[in-house]
Amino acid sequence: MQQTDVIVVGAGISGLTAAWRLACAGKRVQVLEANERVGGRTLNHGLSTGDVVELGGQWVGPTQDRILGLLGELNLSTFPLWNQGDNLTFFGGRLKPYRGTIPRFSPLVLLDVLQAQMRFERLSRQIPLDDPARHPRAEEWDSMTFAEWIRRTLKTAQGRKVFELMSGAVFAASPHDLSFLHVLFYVQAGSGFDCILGVENGAQQDRIQGGSQRICLELAARLGDAVRLGQPVRALRQDGQGVELLTDSGRYQAGRVILAVPPTQLLRITQAPLLPGWRDQMLQRQPQGASIKCMAHYQRPFWRERGLSGQATSEVGPVRLTFDNSLPGSAGGVLLGFIEGDEARHWSMRSEDERRAVVLECFARYFGQEALAPLEYVDKCWADEPFARGCYAACFPPGLWTTGAARLREPHGRLHFAGTETATRWMGYFDGAVEAAERAVAEVLAAG
Amino acid sequence: MQQTDVIVVGAGISGLTAAWRLACAGKRVQVLEANERVGGRTLNHGLSTGDVVELGGQWVGPTQDRILGLLGELNLSTFPLWNQGDNLTFFGGRLKPYRGTIPRFSPLVLLDVLQAQMRFERLSRQIPLDDPARHPRAEEWDSMTFAEWIRRTLKTAQGRKVFELMSGAVFAASPHDLSFLHVLFYVQAGSGFDCILGVENGAQQDRIQGGSQRICLELAARLGDAVRLGQPVRALRQDGQGVELLTDSGRYQAGRVILAVPPTQLLRITQAPLLPGWRDQMLQRQPQGASIKCMAHYQRPFWRERGLSGQATSEVGPVRLTFDNSLPGSAGGVLLGFIEGDEARHWSMRSEDERRAVVLECFARYFGQEALAPLEYVDKCWADEPFARGCYAACFPPGLWTTGAARLREPHGRLHFAGTETATRWMGYFDGAVEAAERAVAEVLAAG
Repeated sequence: MQQTDVIVVGAGISGLTAAWRLACAGKRVQVLEANERVGGRTLNHGLSTGDVVELGGQWVGPTQDRILGLLGELNLSTFPLWNQGDNLTFFGGRLKPYRGTIPRFSPLVLLDVLQAQMRFERLSRQIPLDDPARHPRAEEWDSMTFAEWIRRTLKTAQGRKVFELMSGAVFAASPHDLSFLHVLFYVQAGSGFDCILGVENGAQQDRIQGGSQRICLELAARLGDAVRLGQPVRALRQDGQGVELLTDSGRYQAGRVILAVPPTQLLRITQAPLLPGWRDQMLQRQPQGASIKCMAHYQRPFWRERGLSGQATSEVGPVRLTFDNSLPGSAGGVLLGFIEGDEARHWSMRSEDERRAVVLECFARYFGQEALAPLEYVDKCWADEPFARGCYAACFPPGLWTTGAARLREPHGRLHFAGTETATRWMGYFDGAVEAAERAVAEVLAAG
Repeated sequence: MQQTDVIVVGAGISGLTAAWRLACAGKRVQVLEANERVGGRTLNHGLSTGDVVELGGQWVGPTQDRILGLLGELNLSTFPLWNQGDNLTFFGGRLKPYRGTIPRFSPLVLLDVLQAQMRFERLSRQIPLDDPARHPRAEEWDSMTFAEWIRRTLKTAQGRKVFELMSGAVFAASPHDLSFLHVLFYVQAGSGFDCILGVENGAQQDRIQGGSQRICLELAARLGDAVRLGQPVRALRQDGQGVELLTDSGRYQAGRVILAVPPTQLLRITQAPLLPGWRDQMLQRQPQGASIKCMAHYQRPFWRERGLSGQATSEVGPVRLTFDNSLPGSAGGVLLGFIEGDEARHWSMRSEDERRAVVLECFARYFGQEALAPLEYVDKCWADEPFARGCYAACFPPGLWTTGAARLREPHGRLHFAGTETATRWMGYFDGAVEAAERAVAEVLAAG
């Protein structure tokens, strides 16, 4: 039996930040991580050249002050995603180059997308971030899927596809998976439409030297022995004295516990006393999105030679969104593609060879036949990750916010809840993970 | 280590039916039940007079041939729900009596409800029950919540409320929780609008002598030692040889396993090898509905003296639906009320005393002040039930059917899936539980 002040469950960014802040505040803290690695939904991968890319979350950007502050504390530096040259769209069977964020659609489609974006942002800006349910029209928007709003608001087929792409890019989910209120909230929590979708001045602007998992690796190094790997918490029991946690191979005790795991994982921890029915029911309604992150490594970034940025958006799947993920200072080129939502579930059933073939075909469609012959290919199906079971974050379906989802942030006895899904700004992002950690730490410290 | 041919997880109607059919077919079978009782989502309750009422599912009706057949096999008889006298509606602040299934709304509201019902049934009848996703318009209907369809189809506020009531009564869920495609499917699987909602010739027609839990008690008696109580399965491991299951206090082995538990419970069993990502993701998208079943026991069924049936529907909660649940041959009277969906989650947070007060107020609103003074009151919050975590059944949100939910019925290696959520007729009902059991048994027997 191990005793300590606070146990943090989950060694992702949220859990490790919480543990580190508590340790700095003089608390005896222990971190229990289910996997044999730290990082949560960040995961570095070494290419054959030794260059490091990420199979999980990778970007930071402006207004993400909490994660940027943490990077500073950890002496981690950032560098910009490659963002020069023409972007491509593949719509209506044709490849078209464009600059900036708005593809060269026909004037009709362009007007349609812009009017919808304006309507979206007018609503989005009104959402109270601490609890979207407080908006007077919350009930209406929370009883509607994003798919329904798209169908009603966009007048052109191509315009609708642009918003479907956005749903995949931002949520790793299809529009039918999402409450429209949640989409309004999430985009506003991410500083608005242009910021959450953008590269320059946006959420995809910067990358982290050495790979984003370094955030967790650095925090874990500072925490030392306090981090226990391979300790999936299966059961916990709390009473007036403290909390006892049971892993596959150990039993731990603490005064308080911060649970920094995705909502669907909370369901899988047997609790005594039983988690109240309403909490369990709400966690049942927070499924993870699904994404397969795919990368091909080439001798050189050949698309740049043709003035292309490596960024493509497409109405044809399975890879509908790509980026140039090459490393500065390295001769090689890396194309990054995402398979999202329903398509991610579908392609996760296939072999890696089949995925490799279809992903490279997509890359070739956008960037030419050279894309078919990479030095190496790697992908990661996050739905298959044992203690994440999806990504980027939980997708709130209709009805969740307006029936009290904000209350899931509240402590339950000696349990406190962190993780990016409990954040009010940049939910689903690194920044939200840090916000959630700091709120949970404040609760624990206030409790004495 | 215990060895056997087939282990069935879950001693509800589906699990025990499967086990009994397998035993009859000569298989060595064992049932592992998490609770210290059999019954699943059926649960008898003895009133102070000794009369038995049910805190869980209780009704059977026409076209439910599988459960009616099973009742015959088990020598269990049925009796009709009390269905004489005037029904009541409480809409627009006024109580109005009516006969039959259609309340006395204003002609405008009536026309509105009837046109919507006709439109609903015209669509519902077209749904392929084996897989609703096969309908040509499945994508459209599966990207829409039932709330959205109601808002678009019903022209009157009262008409909308009628359909909201239906959602609560049939799904224990609010319209925003449900895919419209799922509602179309579910109603058709329940023999149509009038049948699924009706008392006479409907799904609420008949009750089971001695209480519906007797189905499971009788099956368990026949299975004898094969049923182990208090054995929550926490982990399972399958390989080419068989399956090993781990409970809190035991380790069991079998050639094949039938999992007859609600979908959200499947998520909570740690599996090796890991459940494929798509299955996990789909189970994350099958939350249970929420219902609180409330009963007040009176000296006599006083409402009958005023020519009332005990059936009320109301636009004012929390009890919006009531029945006369008295036992024939008993002098006492029993009023039964349901609190559904969001309201069930809300009221499950309150004390039983608070619930008693508000439920009796509802009963008094419909049936007079005598309702405030019962001999006894009892209720059951199914969201708080440790191994059900809700009822009546899983509520499919938008996007689930059209991304392959029907495939969840397919075996996974040596695992077979039963439970009413895997049925194609009367999903969510006893009858669906039996259908699912018989399908799973056929799979196991075919596998040899």
